[in-house]
Amino acid sequence: MTPNTYKEIHLANRPEGTPTDKDFNFIEKEIPSIGKDEVLLRTLYLSVDPYMRGRMKDVKSYVEPFKLNEAITGGILAEVVESNSDKFQQGDVVNGTLNWAEYNVANAQSVQKVDPSLAPITTRLGILGLTGLTAYFGLLDIGKPQQGETVVVSGAAGAVGSVVGQIAKLKGAHVVGIAGSQEKIDYLINELGFDAAVNYKSDSFKEDFKKAIPNGVDVYFDNVGGEVSDAVIFEINRNARIVLCGTISSYNNPEADLGPRIQWKFITTSSMMKGFTLGDYAHDFKTGAQALAGWLQEGKLKYEETITEGFEKTPEAFLGLFEGSNLGKQLVKVADPEFAKL
Amino acid sequence: MTPNTYKEIHLANRPEGTPTDKDFNFIEKEIPSIGKDEVLLRTLYLSVDPYMRGRMKDVKSYVEPFKLNEAITGGILAEVVESNSDKFQQGDVVNGTLNWAEYNVANAQSVQKVDPSLAPITTRLGILGLTGLTAYFGLLDIGKPQQGETVVVSGAAGAVGSVVGQIAKLKGAHVVGIAGSQEKIDYLINELGFDAAVNYKSDSFKEDFKKAIPNGVDVYFDNVGGEVSDAVIFEINRNARIVLCGTISSYNNPEADLGPRIQWKFITTSSMMKGFTLGDYAHDFKTGAQALAGWLQEGKLKYEETITEGFEKTPEAFLGLFEGSNLGKQLVKVADPEFAKL
Repeated sequence: MTPNTYKEIHLANRPEGTPTDKDFNFIEKEIPSIGKDEVLLRTLYLSVDPYMRGRMKDVKSYVEPFKLNEAITGGILAEVVESNSDKFQQGDVVNGTLNWAEYNVANAQSVQKVDPSLAPITTRLGILGLTGLTAYFGLLDIGKPQQGETVVVSGAAGAVGSVVGQIAKLKGAHVVGIAGSQEKIDYLINELGFDAAVNYKSDSFKEDFKKAIPNGVDVYFDNVGGEVSDAVIFEINRNARIVLCGTISSYNNPEADLGPRIQWKFITTSSMMKGFTLGDYAHDFKTGAQALAGWLQEGKLKYEETITEGFEKTPEAFLGLFEGSNLGKQLVKVADPEFAKL
Repeated sequence: MTPNTYKEIHLANRPEGTPTDKDFNFIEKEIPSIGKDEVLLRTLYLSVDPYMRGRMKDVKSYVEPFKLNEAITGGILAEVVESNSDKFQQGDVVNGTLNWAEYNVANAQSVQKVDPSLAPITTRLGILGLTGLTAYFGLLDIGKPQQGETVVVSGAAGAVGSVVGQIAKLKGAHVVGIAGSQEKIDYLINELGFDAAVNYKSDSFKEDFKKAIPNGVDVYFDNVGGEVSDAVIFEINRNARIVLCGTISSYNNPEADLGPRIQWKFITTSSMMKGFTLGDYAHDFKTGAQALAGWLQEGKLKYEETITEGFEKTPEAFLGLFEGSNLGKQLVKVADPEFAKL
């Protein structure tokens, strides 16, 4: 039974440094009636992603900042509760960028139908969604790994990094992951087939890393930035490609982050680095999604999800990203389906 | 008359920090007799270049380090004094990578004949030589300036920078130079046709620079690195291209050079930076040289030379590069021709 009210999470402050619970407000709202071509959606899963930290700052960037005292938005899987659109009926599962809320009202054009028979629906928020596509385009369009080259990926056990490493293996590269716990190292080597993985929290990180790259570094897919990336960049080969995807190590650091200047290393090796965001590849999403789905169906890609249960745990799940508490894609399970058959 | 002895400059020490006179030894040697296919060459001009500082370190890089107690080598224009080769006769002018010496013996295959009637011979060490080609390939292959875009170049009044800015103007860009004196600023604007030029030594550099780039920065050709480059990188537009040619600001700094991390800026703008050295384009030198010679003949490219007179002043001319005492290409005039007709 659909209740009369639902909860929605608003941005209460623009956090300085690491966000805390106080930066999130849970607002109670009445379930509205829906208009022409609209649907009432009940959230099943929501995605928390590192890039959202950037949107909490009042800084012009590639996406608009979140507005203060309005709902935070992100990738959501929901079931259709009521529909005023020919496109959808009750029990359909949809995927879209929606409010962090237990219910959403959306125009039917703004969400996509999800076929639960193709793969578990949560893949649409991970390996078959934005994080999988980010790995696919960043690695293949910028990194361009060749057979026998060495590909290093930081944040390797995360939602993007774990896919990057597996695609690099499919391309015949020697793949080295960097992650922050022995559990993650074991997962990368034993489950995902990485050639090596090193723990950046270890005192012997730099030596361990050098042992893992006997032929240097040809491609570095960088999710973290900071000192880990310094260590990698100092080992690049001629004509290396650095794919800049994220700098999670400094998202919560409000001070200017200082490090060694790296330009000389790029000159002496004729190497390049390029940043990107997934929107750069919007014209080509279909190609990427088909490739990822194909590999997944053939059993060539594996994925892991860390699922936190309960809408009220959303801030906690988000903040955990910055402590590396997730393995693979971090999701929040908001509700079991009432109408959808999964 | 050819003397019996000549002087040659050897690297006496691997300098820590800024080199001094004591790092250079003037050695007196006897003029040898030449063998089959060899020529005896009398140096007219030699080129001093910032990249040579890198070769004084005992560090593996894109070129071999200079050897201790052996001759420093570089670009030289010389006249043929004696020839055991069909290719050359007395009075020919040649260009090659030779010892910093008043005389050289060289295999005829290792030097190229220079036609003094096409352009002043010193252009072969500058705008029609390595520095012109460096500007040409770096700007056009990596920077790819488009009509109406803003191109910024640091070290703008130097041998490479002054050519970069002029080629960018030929491509229809808004061109902004960064240099270190009012004389250089005036030269860039009044002589070379730059749209704006700013003095990085001024207290108001950052404000001056922002005024000069009302539409941001699309291409940055970087010869200097350091704080100047930080200021430029923080103003790049979406899809900007940073061409890394040199970091002269830190060549003499033996400590790790710290600065703000820049990766986030490349991510939020989907921008790239790439280092290069001229050797990357060896297969294509002819194309570049023809284009440069064409523009020069049409009067579309201007150049300046700073010529220091006297072989014994070579170390001084080299060290002056790091103080920015040159305008355009820095050369040393070693001798007037005895046999060549210029």
